[in-house]
Amino acid sequence: MKTRDRILQTSLRLFNEEGEPRITTNHIAAEMDISPGNLYYHFHNKDEIIALLFQQFERRMKTILQVPERRIPNMEDMWLYLHLVFEAIWEYRFLYRDLDSILNRNKKLRTHFRRILERKMSTAAAICQGLVEARIMNATSDDITALTRNIAVVATYWLNFQGIHASTTTPASESDHLASGVYQVLTLVNPFLNDEAQQLLREISREYL
Amino acid sequence: MKTRDRILQTSLRLFNEEGEPRITTNHIAAEMDISPGNLYYHFHNKDEIIALLFQQFERRMKTILQVPERRIPNMEDMWLYLHLVFEAIWEYRFLYRDLDSILNRNKKLRTHFRRILERKMSTAAAICQGLVEARIMNATSDDITALTRNIAVVATYWLNFQGIHASTTTPASESDHLASGVYQVLTLVNPFLNDEAQQLLREISREYL
Repeated sequence: MKTRDRILQTSLRLFNEEGEPRITTNHIAAEMDISPGNLYYHFHNKDEIIALLFQQFERRMKTILQVPERRIPNMEDMWLYLHLVFEAIWEYRFLYRDLDSILNRNKKLRTHFRRILERKMSTAAAICQGLVEARIMNATSDDITALTRNIAVVATYWLNFQGIHASTTTPASESDHLASGVYQVLTLVNPFLNDEAQQLLREISREYL
Repeated sequence: MKTRDRILQTSLRLFNEEGEPRITTNHIAAEMDISPGNLYYHFHNKDEIIALLFQQFERRMKTILQVPERRIPNMEDMWLYLHLVFEAIWEYRFLYRDLDSILNRNKKLRTHFRRILERKMSTAAAICQGLVEARIMNATSDDITALTRNIAVVATYWLNFQGIHASTTTPASESDHLASGVYQVLTLVNPFLNDEAQQLLREISREYL
């Protein structure tokens, strides 16, 4: 693996484990057993590393946030969509943990993050629209607008909420985060589903949690 | 007004307007036209000022988050409760805007903030329980648990979500924040209400927005 890629990988791991504010470029170089000069040859500062990691995250989210085009979306699409979104958030969780301070430092990232948020909402809206057409969901277009906004808030801030709400400081495991996050978002969707779909959801949730 | 109280009031205003990370004790002293030494006589550092402001906020929230004890809570209680919560959040919005960095710097505040969050949820749960008993709401106890968690996430992070989602950097006005926040939380409650209460909610929302 190239030094540049190793720097990115090590930074991502350290940011996620320790929190981005606590990690300096010197920490990263020390962890990799390379000189700070060698690191600076590839990245001038920490914000350049963050910008590159953000690009990777953005590409990943773009791939996930695609609505199936050839057929009407169904409950499995909603489930899969949420699962993949929470998986990607977990993998780049340092971004979400210190979102405000990272976005305040970099206006360009803020614009890109807003685009990801908008895409999250338009994909969720398209899936809901599909469920309405398939008569699995019963919701007006106002309902769907409010619902997709709630989905975006809960998905975006679930990690932060859990971090404050949990009485221990130990971070939840990936599987905990995925299961509780997907479940929590599905409780937003549930009241709009028909009886059969609600029953299906209860069964999947029991297995999943 | 005593100097100490004026320091608190000026700090709150500057933190809210400019963001807490951008304001130093020197800014506060300059704004008040007092010497930094005079300020230090009252507060040793910025975190002491933040801790005091947080205490004020906590007392305010404790007063708000009381469930009516002598009668069954109704829709008006839910409405009033949300209105007062969003009003208090707006008044101390600097806390919510940089929540993670403020709570990471101070473990004691984290514990207190967690208590406020728990109180938010238990009050919301008590009101929902009241609505169920009055047959205004139809929800199982699992529904109420998930719903109160969603209410807490949306109420806590609504400002941050709007800050990223809004394309302009100008902060929303107090009335925008209140109206959109209360409306958004009520969309969470709405699907569980009976037809009559849903109709009532639609009417109130139209006037309110």
